Amino acid sequence: MPQPDHISKLGVPDSAGLDDDLKAIWGKCQDKLGFVPNVFSAYSPKPQRLRNFMAMYNEIMLSDSGLSKLEREMIAVVVSSANRCYYCLVAHGAAVRQLSGDPELGEMMALNYRVAKLDTRQRAMLDFAWKMTTTPWLVEDEDRAELRKVGLSNEDVFDLAETVAFFNLSNRMASGTDMMPNREYHRATR
Amino acid sequence: MPQPDHISKLGVPDSAGLDDDLKAIWGKCQDKLGFVPNVFSAYSPKPQRLRNFMAMYNEIMLSDSGLSKLEREMIAVVVSSANRCYYCLVAHGAAVRQLSGDPELGEMMALNYRVAKLDTRQRAMLDFAWKMTTTPWLVEDEDRAELRKVGLSNEDVFDLAETVAFFNLSNRMASGTDMMPNREYHRATR
Amino acid sequence: MPQPDHISKLGVPDSAGLDDDLKAIWGKCQDKLGFVPNVFSAYSPKPQRLRNFMAMYNEIMLSDSGLSKLEREMIAVVVSSANRCYYCLVAHGAAVRQLSGDPELGEMMALNYRVAKLDTRQRAMLDFAWKMTTTPWLVEDEDRAELRKVGLSNEDVFDLAETVAFFNLSNRMASGTDMMPNREYHRATR
Amino acid sequence: MPQPDHISKLGVPDSAGLDDDLKAIWGKCQDKLGFVPNVFSAYSPKPQRLRNFMAMYNEIMLSDSGLSKLEREMIAVVVSSANRCYYCLVAHGAAVRQLSGDPELGEMMALNYRVAKLDTRQRAMLDFAWKMTTTPWLVEDEDRAELRKVGLSNEDVFDLAETVAFFNLSNRMASGTDMMPNREYHRATR
Amino acid sequence: MPQPDHISKLGVPDSAGLDDDLKAIWGKCQDKLGFVPNVFSAYSPKPQRLRNFMAMYNEIMLSDSGLSKLEREMIAVVVSSANRCYYCLVAHGAAVRQLSGDPELGEMMALNYRVAKLDTRQRAMLDFAWKMTTTPWLVEDEDRAELRKVGLSNEDVFDLAETVAFFNLSNRMASGTDMMPNREYHRATR
Amino acid sequence: MPQPDHISKLGVPDSAGLDDDLKAIWGKCQDKLGFVPNVFSAYSPKPQRLRNFMAMYNEIMLSDSGLSKLEREMIAVVVSSANRCYYCLVAHGAAVRQLSGDPELGEMMALNYRVAKLDTRQRAMLDFAWKMTTTPWLVEDEDRAELRKVGLSNEDVFDLAETVAFFNLSNRMASGTDMMPNREYHRATR
Repeated sequence: MPQPDHISKLGVPDSAGLDDDLKAIWGKCQDKLGFVPNVFSAYSPKPQRLRNFMAMYNEIMLSDSGLSKLEREMIAVVVSSANRCYYCLVAHGAAVRQLSGDPELGEMMALNYRVAKLDTRQRAMLDFAWKMTTTPWLVEDEDRAELRKVGLSNEDVFDLAETVAFFNLSNRMASGTDMMPNREYHRATR
Repeated sequence: MPQPDHISKLGVPDSAGLDDDLKAIWGKCQDKLGFVPNVFSAYSPKPQRLRNFMAMYNEIMLSDSGLSKLEREMIAVVVSSANRCYYCLVAHGAAVRQLSGDPELGEMMALNYRVAKLDTRQRAMLDFAWKMTTTPWLVEDEDRAELRKVGLSNEDVFDLAETVAFFNLSNRMASGTDMMPNREYHRATR
Repeated sequence: MPQPDHISKLGVPDSAGLDDDLKAIWGKCQDKLGFVPNVFSAYSPKPQRLRNFMAMYNEIMLSDSGLSKLEREMIAVVVSSANRCYYCLVAHGAAVRQLSGDPELGEMMALNYRVAKLDTRQRAMLDFAWKMTTTPWLVEDEDRAELRKVGLSNEDVFDLAETVAFFNLSNRMASGTDMMPNREYHRATR
Repeated sequence: MPQPDHISKLGVPDSAGLDDDLKAIWGKCQDKLGFVPNVFSAYSPKPQRLRNFMAMYNEIMLSDSGLSKLEREMIAVVVSSANRCYYCLVAHGAAVRQLSGDPELGEMMALNYRVAKLDTRQRAMLDFAWKMTTTPWLVEDEDRAELRKVGLSNEDVFDLAETVAFFNLSNRMASGTDMMPNREYHRATR
Repeated sequence: MPQPDHISKLGVPDSAGLDDDLKAIWGKCQDKLGFVPNVFSAYSPKPQRLRNFMAMYNEIMLSDSGLSKLEREMIAVVVSSANRCYYCLVAHGAAVRQLSGDPELGEMMALNYRVAKLDTRQRAMLDFAWKMTTTPWLVEDEDRAELRKVGLSNEDVFDLAETVAFFNLSNRMASGTDMMPNREYHRATR
Repeated sequence: MPQPDHISKLGVPDSAGLDDDLKAIWGKCQDKLGFVPNVFSAYSPKPQRLRNFMAMYNEIMLSDSGLSKLEREMIAVVVSSANRCYYCLVAHGAAVRQLSGDPELGEMMALNYRVAKLDTRQRAMLDFAWKMTTTPWLVEDEDRAELRKVGLSNEDVFDLAETVAFFNLSNRMASGTDMMPNREYHRATR
């Protein structure tokens, strides 16, 4: 059975025509990852949108935070699981496998995080992520109180909320454009 | 009955301590709107996050697009209606009233957009926005085909999708932090 | 954008042909409110149905009760919010603004009552109203016990239940007939 | 296993203290049915509410209409099935069995109306009833057009809508008060 | 109104052509019940599937267990109520009426088990059955802990889980084939 | 992070005490797969239940059918995706990867089958599987008609329905017992 070979159903311009700063990023991705993440290509018809997306992504996922990088990736995958987002589950599932060195953990986050053996702090964060994703109108003080009970500061809650919010954006860009993940993710850290 | 008087449940630092570029923005808001939007204050504990949020917001809502500014605000309100987001319904409901000069249109978008007398193009965009928000995993080629049938180009679909995606982020930042809108919005353009 | 100008999609007869008792009511509405509520016009093809509706409405919303008139209007709006009923949100949202003198309270009830700063008695009543509206089959003794814990008597619970029940009727008459509210409500007490 | 023996969890006053007009109705019910329907007893702490409820019920279910009495009872049961209302399913299930002389039809309406062999007119009415009950905010012109296609006039649609609306009220009074049906219904017309 | 007269929409072969072991079962059913349950006929195009189904059914519903036969039938009906399965509600509703000698209990299980006056053990089992049926992904250790609190052993939980699981299979065979129950069930033990 | 190391939360007896026929199966599994599937161990406290489960499983998944073995595994995974069943997604996801030789196809079935490039026949089967799993009460003649339109015979529809039904059983046994899949599945055919 042939699998989908598009990157985005809204079209992707030839990377030869990209602005220099983006060409440089394309180059770095090739060097470091061996490929350019399809989300970049899918955004590339609108270069400024792409720059904004990358800036927000880098700040949320890579800057200093009370939440570890692995925890942020776990949140990304749980949000994407609630939204059944193929692109993000494949790409960030690979990131969880890689950062944790635990391929099963990646699967659990993608398929049903409740089966994983998590400490109460991580479990509370993922429960909050699920609720904020599926019924944001029901989030109240008592939900934030649960997070504080397991040790999250105001800053940590902010970072958690923004990570959840960002993947609710990102899942929907993928669904709106039918974005396909690079195939390299599938085999990574199995 | 006293109404909520917080801006965010995660705290807001004194604006006196803001970086100069942000202070300048605070000043411009005061001049132009008479107040600083609470979303800026709520984001201000994390200045770089705020900058990224403003950059993305401005590009999506204010740059050139095949979708009019009013249409983008209508989409913002319909997404926020699906997510029952008080902050965004109040702030962007006011924007719909102001840009359209039609206070009832703002109410319709916030309460149930299906009652409005829309042309088929706008109706198709809002149906797509509702579906992408509530069941993103069900969005398929036939949904994009509906948009093309009423005249949207690939670029228009991209802008629509990104607007929907952005307010799914923004609604969740509001719910995660219990962000309250500035009271000025309530009286605007009634 | 022209807004809907119908009252009901099932037609409204000329008020000149109404029975005398109804003509008298039409006159009183004009004197007191400046207009005849569209729900009356929408019901007027069936005069006896209209009389029954008005009798029930008046008894539930205006007679003596342990629930204040404002509280009954708050319940009306929260039920209508769960059902996303445009007519009732507009008409009874205006009533909450007027009775409370607090325009924001009206918005909160319509958009997401959980953001309002309510005392525990009112919050418990509105939570009960939401549950009875959205999942009536799950209402049990422990839900009524919550109401008694915050001071409601059997009579108060009866009045609460009947108010919720009545607006579940009324929201559906509006949806079944596509009833549009009078425009005068929009500007009232902003 | 002992079954529930209450009529309403909010209490029922001694019928000896009822007003004369209600006593007369109690007498007529005893003569005609052999019992007083529990919904009357459950409403009797509030005599005027009871009178209004009976007036509305009689007009909707018993007056002349393009919908037969059986059809109105079928609608009552389908609405109550969507809301999983024990009282109304038992009492109006019995009415469908009695009016149709077809015990299985009563069961089908209560358990899943889609299995019954209905003509397209009745099927369309019940589909409309289900939608108006479960997602009233999605009812639109095209739903009314389906009804007209199978022969319903504006008056018929009004009667259908009001029947659906009324049982959405009545189901919720039953759930709010935990109203139990008279046991006589169970054995009727099996 | 003529009621459906098919057994399965996928066809039923003449019983004359059945293998001898199945013919013997057909005969026993006729002797004992007066009819062959339609589920057997519906399965009979695939004799080995039928044998497997009967073997599993008999073991789960009739072998020794810490759950009484009545309790297993109550679970069957509650699962079928969640899935609104006409066939199983009719057939197993009759079994609850017969085993309990309490026709109302059968109705309560089919229409809304929460209205029945159950002991805490049975109520906990039925709540577990409802949750396992409607949101199996949310079942966790704390749900099993509730069962143990009311006295269920590991074996009892296994039997409960398998009964729930089996009727989730059986309800779907009925829906997939539009299986109709034998009419004899309707009148049994009313 | 240590991952779960239980097989079932209801306990698993020592395989040394198994009946001879089961010991023989354990042996064959070790020889052929290198491990005994945990579902067998989880069922082993009830040997007859296990035999029935294996008999049904083998007949549905391995006997002759108009649906290929791969198609039956695809259906298994899509049902398990709707039910978010970790055990079955891991075990049968591996089977899809192995039978198709296409690791991505396994991921697509588990995460959101709508992204896969399927022929109309397979797509129709999976849509039917999703509907039968999530809203079995809505399955009607027109759903079966869709299957016939793409070439399924009555026998094929039977096999499809039974496969869907079986995994609705199997997913719930996994959730009721918190069954964990063997770790060997994770690495298979990546």
